[in-house]
Formats: sequence, structure tokens, C-alpha cells
Amino acid sequence: MRSYPATVSSLIHHRTFSVLRRTLSLRSPATVTTPMANGSTTANEDSLRRALADKQSTIDARGNAIRQLKSSGASKSEIDEAVKALNDLKLEKTSIENQLKASISGDAGGSGTSRDAFRQAVVNTLERRLFYIPSFKIYRGVAGLYDYGPPGCAVKSNVLAFWRQHFVLEEDMLEVDCPCVTPEVVLKASGHVDKFTDLMVKDEKTGNCYRADHLLKDYCKDKLENDLAMSADKAAELKHVLAVLDDLSGEQLGAKIKEYGIVAPDTKNPLSDPYPFNLMFQTQIGPSGASTGYMRPETAQGIFVNFKDLYYYNGNKLPFAAAQIGQAFRNEISPRQGLLRVREFTLAEIEHFVDPDDKSHPKYSEVKDLKFLMFPRDEQMSGQSAKVLCLGEAVSKGIVNNQTLAYFIGRVYLFLTRLGIDEKRLRFRQHLPNEMAHYAADCWDAEIESSYGWIECVGIADRSAYDLRAHTDKSNVALVAQEKFAAPKEVEKLVITPSKKELGLAFKGSQKMVAEALEAMGEKEAMDMKAALETKGEVQFEVCTLEKTVTIKKNMVSISKEIKKEHQRTFTPSVIEPSFGIGRIIYCLYEHSFYMRPSKAGDEQLNVFRFPPLVAPIKCTVFPLVQNQQYEEVAKQISRSLTAAGISNKKDITGTSIGKRYARTDELGVPFAVTVDSTSSVTIRERDSKDQIRVNVDEVAAVIKDVSEGRCKWNDILQKYPAHTSASADE
Amino acid sequence: MRSYPATVSSLIHHRTFSVLRRTLSLRSPATVTTPMANGSTTANEDSLRRALADKQSTIDARGNAIRQLKSSGASKSEIDEAVKALNDLKLEKTSIENQLKASISGDAGGSGTSRDAFRQAVVNTLERRLFYIPSFKIYRGVAGLYDYGPPGCAVKSNVLAFWRQHFVLEEDMLEVDCPCVTPEVVLKASGHVDKFTDLMVKDEKTGNCYRADHLLKDYCKDKLENDLAMSADKAAELKHVLAVLDDLSGEQLGAKIKEYGIVAPDTKNPLSDPYPFNLMFQTQIGPSGASTGYMRPETAQGIFVNFKDLYYYNGNKLPFAAAQIGQAFRNEISPRQGLLRVREFTLAEIEHFVDPDDKSHPKYSEVKDLKFLMFPRDEQMSGQSAKVLCLGEAVSKGIVNNQTLAYFIGRVYLFLTRLGIDEKRLRFRQHLPNEMAHYAADCWDAEIESSYGWIECVGIADRSAYDLRAHTDKSNVALVAQEKFAAPKEVEKLVITPSKKELGLAFKGSQKMVAEALEAMGEKEAMDMKAALETKGEVQFEVCTLEKTVTIKKNMVSISKEIKKEHQRTFTPSVIEPSFGIGRIIYCLYEHSFYMRPSKAGDEQLNVFRFPPLVAPIKCTVFPLVQNQQYEEVAKQISRSLTAAGISNKKDITGTSIGKRYARTDELGVPFAVTVDSTSSVTIRERDSKDQIRVNVDEVAAVIKDVSEGRCKWNDILQKYPAHTSASADE
Repeated sequence: MRSYPATVSSLIHHRTFSVLRRTLSLRSPATVTTPMANGSTTANEDSLRRALADKQSTIDARGNAIRQLKSSGASKSEIDEAVKALNDLKLEKTSIENQLKASISGDAGGSGTSRDAFRQAVVNTLERRLFYIPSFKIYRGVAGLYDYGPPGCAVKSNVLAFWRQHFVLEEDMLEVDCPCVTPEVVLKASGHVDKFTDLMVKDEKTGNCYRADHLLKDYCKDKLENDLAMSADKAAELKHVLAVLDDLSGEQLGAKIKEYGIVAPDTKNPLSDPYPFNLMFQTQIGPSGASTGYMRPETAQGIFVNFKDLYYYNGNKLPFAAAQIGQAFRNEISPRQGLLRVREFTLAEIEHFVDPDDKSHPKYSEVKDLKFLMFPRDEQMSGQSAKVLCLGEAVSKGIVNNQTLAYFIGRVYLFLTRLGIDEKRLRFRQHLPNEMAHYAADCWDAEIESSYGWIECVGIADRSAYDLRAHTDKSNVALVAQEKFAAPKEVEKLVITPSKKELGLAFKGSQKMVAEALEAMGEKEAMDMKAALETKGEVQFEVCTLEKTVTIKKNMVSISKEIKKEHQRTFTPSVIEPSFGIGRIIYCLYEHSFYMRPSKAGDEQLNVFRFPPLVAPIKCTVFPLVQNQQYEEVAKQISRSLTAAGISNKKDITGTSIGKRYARTDELGVPFAVTVDSTSSVTIRERDSKDQIRVNVDEVAAVIKDVSEGRCKWNDILQKYPAHTSASADE
Repeated sequence: MRSYPATVSSLIHHRTFSVLRRTLSLRSPATVTTPMANGSTTANEDSLRRALADKQSTIDARGNAIRQLKSSGASKSEIDEAVKALNDLKLEKTSIENQLKASISGDAGGSGTSRDAFRQAVVNTLERRLFYIPSFKIYRGVAGLYDYGPPGCAVKSNVLAFWRQHFVLEEDMLEVDCPCVTPEVVLKASGHVDKFTDLMVKDEKTGNCYRADHLLKDYCKDKLENDLAMSADKAAELKHVLAVLDDLSGEQLGAKIKEYGIVAPDTKNPLSDPYPFNLMFQTQIGPSGASTGYMRPETAQGIFVNFKDLYYYNGNKLPFAAAQIGQAFRNEISPRQGLLRVREFTLAEIEHFVDPDDKSHPKYSEVKDLKFLMFPRDEQMSGQSAKVLCLGEAVSKGIVNNQTLAYFIGRVYLFLTRLGIDEKRLRFRQHLPNEMAHYAADCWDAEIESSYGWIECVGIADRSAYDLRAHTDKSNVALVAQEKFAAPKEVEKLVITPSKKELGLAFKGSQKMVAEALEAMGEKEAMDMKAALETKGEVQFEVCTLEKTVTIKKNMVSISKEIKKEHQRTFTPSVIEPSFGIGRIIYCLYEHSFYMRPSKAGDEQLNVFRFPPLVAPIKCTVFPLVQNQQYEEVAKQISRSLTAAGISNKKDITGTSIGKRYARTDELGVPFAVTVDSTSSVTIRERDSKDQIRVNVDEVAAVIKDVSEGRCKWNDILQKYPAHTSASADE
């Protein structure tokens, strides 16, 4: 039997760091930069705290001096001068306080409030236009559950279709679709039943539940932000707590909560000690009540348990990748941060199975020259920031562990930027040693910067053979691959031959069990025995099945190493797992696509989503310029031809001004608008440039289709068709 | 407050009759035709049973006669003749028995066994090629849960993409995407918490669970099929039980189980009385344990609770439709029949909201001339079969309730046949009165014939205002629509004006409650009171809030009808709900697409799926004719150009014979195969005709794309390119 780690907490630790990571406050969505990454800011804040404390003691000393001056009957002018000096000092103190506040919020220019305002503007638009809304609103909703309304649903469907094209189709992956309801044994094997937990505390009077780490984090952040008089040493302590929050045990968390006197935020009641709460939704499968099941917390396990069939389907060849898109479920203790932390979400996961001895990738050359923001471990540890690296160099310098991992990092970069993620606000961050499971070879997260900070949206991990081994062990079905050698290979093999005769004489009825125990020895144990037998002639040997130790003599067993010919090797493949949090990617895309511009009259700010056509929920709107049956007929005809071409479109035949109608669809991110102002030709307007061209009615669908599906760019079209400059007040 | 039916069992009754219907054995997948629909067969079976009984009594009588002859010492020749006559009678009896057996299995030609063999061949192919497999196989699986492997996943994704194009895009529907985890209050309002149950019995010793109706059904069917000596009356009784199985209460089911002595099939132990088991998977939302949730049993409720936002999104205009594709969950007691009865499945549901006073449809003219198999209520009740009707005529004759319902029936017909469902094995069956909820206006099921019989795959129901009213009632949020009148309308309104003075004098402190009770009277009650006051001068009136009856005199209240002007009306929209069981449609599609043909050598039968390109999991395979670097390079180039065009394709560069490679992809339903036999031009072969044409390498992707996406037909292409007749043994 293989030896596995006694605890799988490291696995879960890893898993929680995947898209669904929950505990590391350093990189939690609420934090903009990791403390280790903003060393300079921290240093600045420290010196400000010290300067503030110095200034305060100077002020205190001067105050005492003035009181002494007064009691000693000093002259009015002398006292006035001292008071003026003291007031100057107080002004200086206020200035330091302001600098400190700015430094704490990581925001020297005061953009912190504008970031909140920006988020509010985006979220208001998203909810008003039904991109998403809280679920079950008429029943006052459920925390952490959201509905996608029509435009949100279309965006999601476009993102998933592109994911299928970019990964499944272009990489020839084997897509599978497994149920959400999962029997306990599967999630027992994966470690989720025992270890997929968050630490929770309860209000001792009301029973309200809180995440222990959240309460401690909130306490530390609140103190750091608002207690400016706190000493630099105390501030350093609280920062340290934030930095190690994820590594704290339940006992340590509980001790800190007691030490700081943290109470239930809603009631100020005392709190229980922290205890683990399993985050899976539990249920019963079948009517008997005897079969526990869970709603899957990730889609990956459905792929692992099917490895054998998929390997066979692939002609018993490695490498190959399987992929799955589907719902995953996590019963969060107290979800917050909108779409970023939810109880049900869509995951898209890839499991790329590869020979652990050969992690090269045939298409590596297609990505190796890509350059983008990377944030390797060393840079994080030494307080530097992310920097633009060439992927191929990162591999050759050993920063990225292997070609296949790098290939997926490159493909994820292309996927996200083609969706419309701003490449300047996208970085690939390598996991620190304490974030990775012991068996993992290397892990990188695609993090996207949003108003909540850097958000992990895709996790890309080389998980080695861990998952397949765990299921092999639990199911007794060997999830392995074979490599047939071109020519037989000579390998050195351990050969253990017990002597039945001698064992029979010595152990009689127990002979068989002793012989089996001898044959089961590993290489090191056997070679140690061989050495001991040769030097001492006998050795003590524990036989588990007999529950006793026996004496083995030299003539009872022969141990040797022999050269044998082998025709194939059998091994457990490594798995490289890119795992995409679709909802998180979409939310970040919304923020990166949103901007405001003044209306033509300049009297209001209009919202725009600059979605690329690939993502836009509707590709084209069709407006008759005025309410008129002829124009409406043409609009209908164009809409029908667009629909037939598979281009989602919407007519707006309301009598509203054309400017208002443009603004309405800009807010939905519709890239093109067709305005019918004659029965022979019409105008097409591009959303961001507001450029307009004139196109014949029967060409419209083809033009929109080409530019929507990326076969040509708007700029090419702009060259080809006459520009239209409208005399009408179009916006 | 509106008055609602005290029980929602009829709602659930309806729901169980939707795609997810579970109880009506008459139309359960295991039954090929509905008893009422095959009146002639039933009549035939009856007469055979009677003939058999007659024959048996004749045989008995003749046997007695022969014994008498023998005892009376009759001549040998006389006895021999009598014995010969008896033997002839026995042969006739055997012949009747055979006819009866055939009649029972509904299968005069004996195709029953070939139907099973056919299913076995399809299912074997599907499982072997990973279209689908039982989930969690390495852990011995879970009943009613299946994984879609790579080709199944691609087929599903193609079916859903076409569904989106055909319904959401072409009909401008509002697509939404709501969570599966649903709080109890929503499913309490819909009636599922109280009534979404099946009746279950338990083995009294082992606790094994069974569906009560299944056991009774199995007993009756087994008796009818195997007990040929049963009297026609007994057979009629068992048939009646089968026919009314769904209408039986728990008590009635229990009584029948006792009467027939039915025991646990696995152990022969006695069974408990039947009791209801709720089919929803239950769970807890959040950590407190105080908030019960369920995995949604259908997607429709997510749309109903969002009606207000969706109506607003649609510019407060009716009609509009919302649509949702997603997972639904049903904790079946003992699932059987493979993909047709599962515990988790994909539903695609449409809720079309319409003014109950105007159910016309603007695009009705596009479907009204369609002709296809329909099975109206009257034909079912009078024992006729389904027949081809013109949809428009069915509406004008009042067979289909309204235009909108008919429009969806027509669109569903087009959807299913374009997917590849055989129109001769597709019928639209109207619900019988006992199948429909009291509030439903009309319901039709799209039923597809498979080896399991006629399977309900799409339910199309006019559910009137029931669902919106139920949620309005529970949530106190009015889910209503307004119609603004072009010009104000004059309506007659009841006006009740209590006289405070007189009531005060008569009832003092109770004055207010009497006044309120008077104002709350309905029209009839008020007009009756007015008439009574006018004739008798006073009337007895019960005031519920006072719990007593008071005397109302003429001067205490004035009641009249007045003409008022109204500018709009407020109403609860009706909903027409097409609900698609995607897994069932796909399974039936597999059966309708499957056929076998002999290999070229004639030594084996090869499996083929004749999927249309729209549905095919892979559109094209690319083979180098022989293993040769030049050809492999061309194959790669063609594969890349297909992928770039979004056409799923697969290379097969194994050295296997080209015939074997064709057979391999025919079995996956791949419609086109490109064989590279030169570097300038290649052959394209169509799967079903096996026709081949010769096309230049750089044209291949465009040709395959056009024919895969339906822009042209294979026959057009066949005209355009030179035919290729291979000298090589291609199959």
C-alpha cells in the first residue's frame, strides 16, 4: 500500500486557495495589495506613525513648558510666541495624521473614495439593467445567491462559448458533464468531508454565526485605519496578525479574539470558541436516509473518478485534458462582496493529465514569447511588485516549473485579455510556499484588479499525482497510465525469495504470514535486512499480521537485486489544473469595461460598457429614426436578417430621441447601432468612437456579422464605407 | 384577499405531468401506448381471453366425455377419434394463447424482443463511446445519476445552443439564470414543499423503499402478461387499476396491495402502508441550521419570482417570454429506465406571459399551416389513435385552446424535427381532464416514441394566472400587469356607503366593525341586501369580526351602482409554459438516429448515428490515407483551419485501415470525413450516403463549414465538386 500524508489539510488548504480560496486575508478580495508586496508603503506608514508619536510628545512637552511659563509669570509676548509655536506643531501633527490616513488606505491621491464611488456606479448600472440581481428578492433574498438577468445571462453564455472554443475545441479536450449531487465516498476520498471547513464563532446568546477570521481581520483593519494614535509597534503586531491570519489554528484565533476583547458585532455579546464548519451543502440521496450526499464544491472530482474511461477514450495516450463547466456550491458562513463570494457559482475546470517525467508541451512555442505581468514568489517575499516578464524566460530561469504549466498560463492570459480584461490590471501571482500543498509542484493565480483589490479569478496548479492516488486508494481501482517502451528496458529489480522449508520448520502454521510479510518489504527495509543478515546472521522482524516480532535467520530468505527486462512502465499521471471562477471573471470584466462620458448637451454623465463584440450581450440594436411604417418595416427586415445570421439584436421602435436610444444601449454595452433613416441605406454607429458609416440595407447583416465575429475590425469597415455625419442631434 | 384553492395538490398533479411527471402509469415510459388509445387492441385481447376460456371449457367437457366413453367401454376407433378432436382443440388453444401473448405485448409481429435488442445495441454503443456512463462508477455508482462523456457533452451543448437560437434569440426572450439552491418559502408558495411527493412503501423488516404505484403496476402487468388463464373480467379489473393508478389515494393503493397480496420484491417480506415521500433534495442554507433550502425541482419558480423586474425590463409591456436553462433535482425513490428517469437533469423552460383576455400571437401565421401528428383528448377518450392535423385547423375548431399555445406547439415541432427527431414518431398529446389542474386552460405534451414507448419530452401548458397569484399571495408583492386604455373606459362600479351616524347610534363602539363588514361585501351580497332593504326595510347581517349577527336597517347604508371612468386595468397575466426535458430529448434522438449496416466485407454489422450536422458531436474527421509526414502535415493544416472556423473536428493519424477509421467515426455520428490522399486535393465523404467528392485543400474548411452550419446541403455540394470513386478498399 502506498503511503499518503496522514492529513489532507494541505490539500484542502490548496483547494481553498484555488478559485474558491477563502481564508488568506492577505489576498482576500477586500485587500488591494498584499502587505508583503507593498513594502514601501508599509515602511512609509511606520515612519509616519513614529513621526506622529514624536510630534505628540513634542506637543505634550511644549504644553507643559507653556504651563510652566505661565506659572512662572513669563511675559505675554514670550507666552504668545510659545503658544504660536505649539499651534504650528499641532498643524504639523494634523498634516502627518492626514498623510498617515492616506498611507493606510493605500491611496496617496485620495482615490479610495472614488474607488467606492466607481464601484457603486457600476453595481447600480448592473442591477438596474438586470445584469444581475439578488435572488428571490420578493422574499427578501438569500445572502450569497444571485440571478443573472437577460444581459448578464447573455454575457455569461458568450464567455462560456468562448471558453469552449479557446480551450475545449482548440486544445482538443475531452469535455464531461457530471452531476452536482455527489455521494459522500467521493468527497471523503478527496478530503472535503473532513477538511473543507471554515472556523466559525457563535454569539453565545443569540446563536448568530460569524467567520472567526473575518472578525479578527475586521478588528485589526478597523484599528489600523482609525486608531492613528496607536504605536508603531502595536500597528506592526496587528499587521503581523493580518499577514498570518490564514495560518492560525482555531485555538490561536480564539486566543486572539479573547486577547483583543472582540465581541459579536451585532449585539456586543460574548463569542464562543472557534470551531470548524463544513462548507458543503449536505443532503440525502434516495428515500432511506442511509446515503449521505453533498452538492459538489468543485467540478474536478467528476473528472478524476472518470480518469480510466477518459484515458481509454483517448486511445490510452498521454497527455490529454478533460474539461468541465458546471455549478459548484459552498455554504459560506456569511457571504459578502457581491458576485465575488457566493454560495453557488459556475466553475470551468480543466484537468490536464501528463507524464510526471515529461511535462513539455507540443504547443509551448506558441506562447513562449508572450510578455505580461507576473509576480513570482521571490518578488513577493522581498517586497517588490509584479513585473512584466517573458513567459519563455520565466520557464528557462526556473521561475515557472514546467512547459505545460507555462502553456496554460499563456493560454489563460490570451483568454482573459481577449474577453476584454485590461492587461495592465491582470497579473499572474505565484503561490508562496505556505499557500501550496506539500505535493504541489507549482501554482499560479491569475489575479484581476478590481475596486475590491486583486481578485483571484483563475487558479493554475500543478497538483502532481495527488488526486488520482487518493481515488485509487479509496476505490481500489488503479487510476494509472502505461508507457510502452520502444525497446524493452533493463531495470534493476528487488527480488525477495523466502525459503518455505526453513520458514516452515521455524514457524509452522505461521509460515505463510511470515513469508508474505518478507515479500512485502520495501527496497530500503529489504536491503537493510540483507546487510544485517550478512553481518549478524539474524535479525528481528515485526510481522503485523501476527502482531509479534520474530527472528529471521540467514537461511530463511534470499534477498538480491537483479536486472530484468521491462516492456512498459506503469505510473500515476500528474495533473495540471486550470480552474476558472466564471462569475468572478465576469464581474471584473464589468468593472474593466465600464466608463462614463458626458452627454452631448453636457448635462449628465452617461454609462457605457465597452464590451468587445465577443462578450456583448446584444451585438446590435436597430432603430427607425422616426416612428414611420416604412422605416419600421426596414428595421424589422434588418433585425430578421441579423437573427437568421445568429447575431443577437434588439429593435427599439419607441419614439424616444435617437440620442436617448443610443445612451440606453451603450449602457448595455451593445457595440453597434443601426439607424434606419431611409429605405435603401442606413447608418451603423460604433459605440465607443461614435463613428457612423452608411451601408446598404441588404449588406447590413453581413457587415455586422463580420465585425461581431472578429473576421474584421471596425477600422477596416470605416475605410470601406462612406462616413455618415448626421445633421440630426444624435446625442 | 383573493380566494385560492385550499389545496395545491392539483398544481402538483399538473407539475408531475409536466416533463417531470411521475405517476401516470398509462403514459409512463414503460408503456408503449395508452390503454384508452389502443381500444381495438384491448377489444381484441378481451375476445381472445374469452375465446381461450371457451376453448378451455370445451376441452374440459371433451376430456370428461372421453373419460365417459372409456368407462362406458366405447370402441377404440370412437375413442381415438374423440382424442384426436381433443388434441386439435388443444392446438387451437395454443394458437389462441400465442395470439393473446402477442396482443398483450402490443406486438402482433413479435417485434417486442427486437425492440429490446435494438435498445441494447444503442445503449451499448452509447456507453462504450462515452456518450453517457453511470456516474461515480469506480465507487459502484449511484442510481439515477449519469455523466455525459465527450461526445454526449458535445451533443448536449449543440442541442442547447440550437434551443437558444430557436427560442431565445428568434423569439426575443429574456433569458435568466437562477440558483439551484432555493429557500423553503419559494417552494412552499409553489406547493412543492407540501405536495411534491410520491407514495412509498417500506419492507417491514429490511426498511428497503419502493414506490407503491410501481409495485402495483408491476403486479398488474405481470399478471396480464403471464397469467393467460385469467378471466376476461379479472383482466379488465387489472387494466382498470392500471388506468386509474394515478388517481388512487394512499389508502386505495394500500388496500389494493393488501388485496393482491403484494410483498417486497427482493425479500418477499410484508410491506408498510403507503405514505408520501417528498422528492426534493433538502439541505440547510447558512451555518445556523435555521434556514431550510431545497435543490430546485424545476427552473420555472426562478422566473415567476422575478416577474416584476422582467416586466419592467420589457418596458412594462405584454406579452413577453422569459427562459431558463439549468439543472433540476428530484430525489426519485427508485430510478429506472436510464436517462429517462434521473435524479438530476437539465431543464429548459419558457414562461410566456400574456394578457388572459388576448392570447393571440403575432407570429401565429408562421406556424398555422404546419401539419403533424396530434392526439386530441376526444380521440384518446374514444379509443382512436393520433392523426395528422393542421395546427391552424386545430385552433379554429377549438381543439387547441388558443393561438399562443398553438404557436409554441408549432415551434416545438420545428425544434424537435430539426434536431433529427423522426416526425412519424413524434406526436402532440392533449392532457385528459383528470391530468390537468383545475386552473389550467389546456396542456399538450410532445411525446416521442422510443423503445420504452411514447415518452413525454416537452410539456406545453397554459397554466393561467396560477403561479403568479401563488407568489403574490405568499410574498405580498403584487405580480401584476397594467393595460393603459387608449381612451378612459366607463365601467359600472359597486358603491357601498355606510351611514356613520345611524350605525353609531345603533352599535356604538362596534360601529367601525359593522361599517367595515358592510364595505367588504361582494357584489352579489350587496345587491341582495339592497333588494331586501328595499322590500323589508331591514336585514340580518353577520359581522365576522364581532362574531355575531346584527340587524341592518334601510337608513344605515346606501348601496348603488355607479358609472366610473377608468384609465387602465390591472390584472395577473396568464402564463404559457413550454418545458423541455433535455436529457429525454437527447436519449430519444439517439434512438432515432441509430442504425446498423453491414461492413463492406459483409462480415459484421457497423453502428451509425445519422445525426444532422447541427447535433453531431464532431462535425468532421481528418485522416491521412497512409502514415506519411506530408499527408499528416496537410491533415494538421486542414484541422487547424476547421478549428479556426469554429468547426469541431478530430484527426485520426493511427495506421488503422481507412474503412475501420470511417466505421469508428460513423459510430460517433460524425457527418463528414476528410481523407488526405494527396497534398493538393483531398476527398470528403458523407456518412450516410458514403458519397465522396474531391476538394482542394484550401477550400475544405469553407465547404465543411457551409454544410455543417446548414448554409447548403450535401446534395448541392455533390453537384459542385467532382465525385471521387476510390480504388482503395475504403470500407
